[in-house]
Amino acid sequence: MKRITFLLVAVVALAGVVAYMTPASGQAGQEAAPIFVTEIPPGYRDWRLISVAHEEGDLNDLRAILGNDIAIKAYREGQLPFPDGTIIARLAWSYDPSEENNKVFGRPQSFVAGPPKNGVQFMVKDSRKYASTGGWGFAHFDDGTPADEAVLNTCFPCHAAIKARDLVFTRYAP
Amino acid sequence: MKRITFLLVAVVALAGVVAYMTPASGQAGQEAAPIFVTEIPPGYRDWRLISVAHEEGDLNDLRAILGNDIAIKAYREGQLPFPDGTIIARLAWSYDPSEENNKVFGRPQSFVAGPPKNGVQFMVKDSRKYASTGGWGFAHFDDGTPADEAVLNTCFPCHAAIKARDLVFTRYAP
Repeated sequence: MKRITFLLVAVVALAGVVAYMTPASGQAGQEAAPIFVTEIPPGYRDWRLISVAHEEGDLNDLRAILGNDIAIKAYREGQLPFPDGTIIARLAWSYDPSEENNKVFGRPQSFVAGPPKNGVQFMVKDSRKYASTGGWGFAHFDDGTPADEAVLNTCFPCHAAIKARDLVFTRYAP
Repeated sequence: MKRITFLLVAVVALAGVVAYMTPASGQAGQEAAPIFVTEIPPGYRDWRLISVAHEEGDLNDLRAILGNDIAIKAYREGQLPFPDGTIIARLAWSYDPSEENNKVFGRPQSFVAGPPKNGVQFMVKDSRKYASTGGWGFAHFDDGTPADEAVLNTCFPCHAAIKARDLVFTRYAP
């Protein structure tokens, strides 16, 4: 009985290792196949602020970029490339004119964050796991649901343009 | 000797109490004279995000509103009025088009936070100390220097319009 238990544990453990090493796409052995982040990093809404932005056009949002402790430390110390464990979160909200604020200001000038919009995105640094996409795992969630691979395949080609800052668009706002 | 020491301690203690009760303007006894916050709350850049906004016009900035732990808890729990100890910080940066981002997007649409702009502002809740201005002490700092009273006197009249949310313009962005 003890022997069977041991074997079972060994088999389960091995399966776990194999699962970890297998790209999400299931193409084991093809290291170039990108793998993505499928779990929302816990507690990200409590992370510290990196910067803010406004995107016009189809996106038309106000956004905040937050970082976990490793990200904030790297930004403040100018550490490049970002170390493994860095996670950068992009939150976004509807770009809404504020009638309430404008009334007080006496002119139309104020735009505030409305309801969440355009999902939540993450970049997770793991230079080994995500080696095929510059060491970054990309993620996009709409109401908690991860985007499919077709969407996530569009992340890396654009981020790859920002070589000088380790594929990260956002600069730290002091 | 003991008696003199005791008297000295008593006088100093009393002076402290009087100093604490005296409005910053020096107009002791006139409770209606507003008093302001003259020290930058330490560590505010590490506080959590409440929301983001864009102001056009003369301000022309991108801004983030951060809160200390008491503020964040009150926002998330819908606690109104905000409890004593609440501090809300307003940071702002130049509203800068990002040529770098636009090049990658293939169209002009991206505005990011440039250098700090329009100072840093705070609202500090102390219902007793700042009773004459709705329980809020107002502060504005340019490069660490507090604004003069003429500037700070303009805060309360506008904030007073937002009675339903305890004089706070910014809503929490989920």
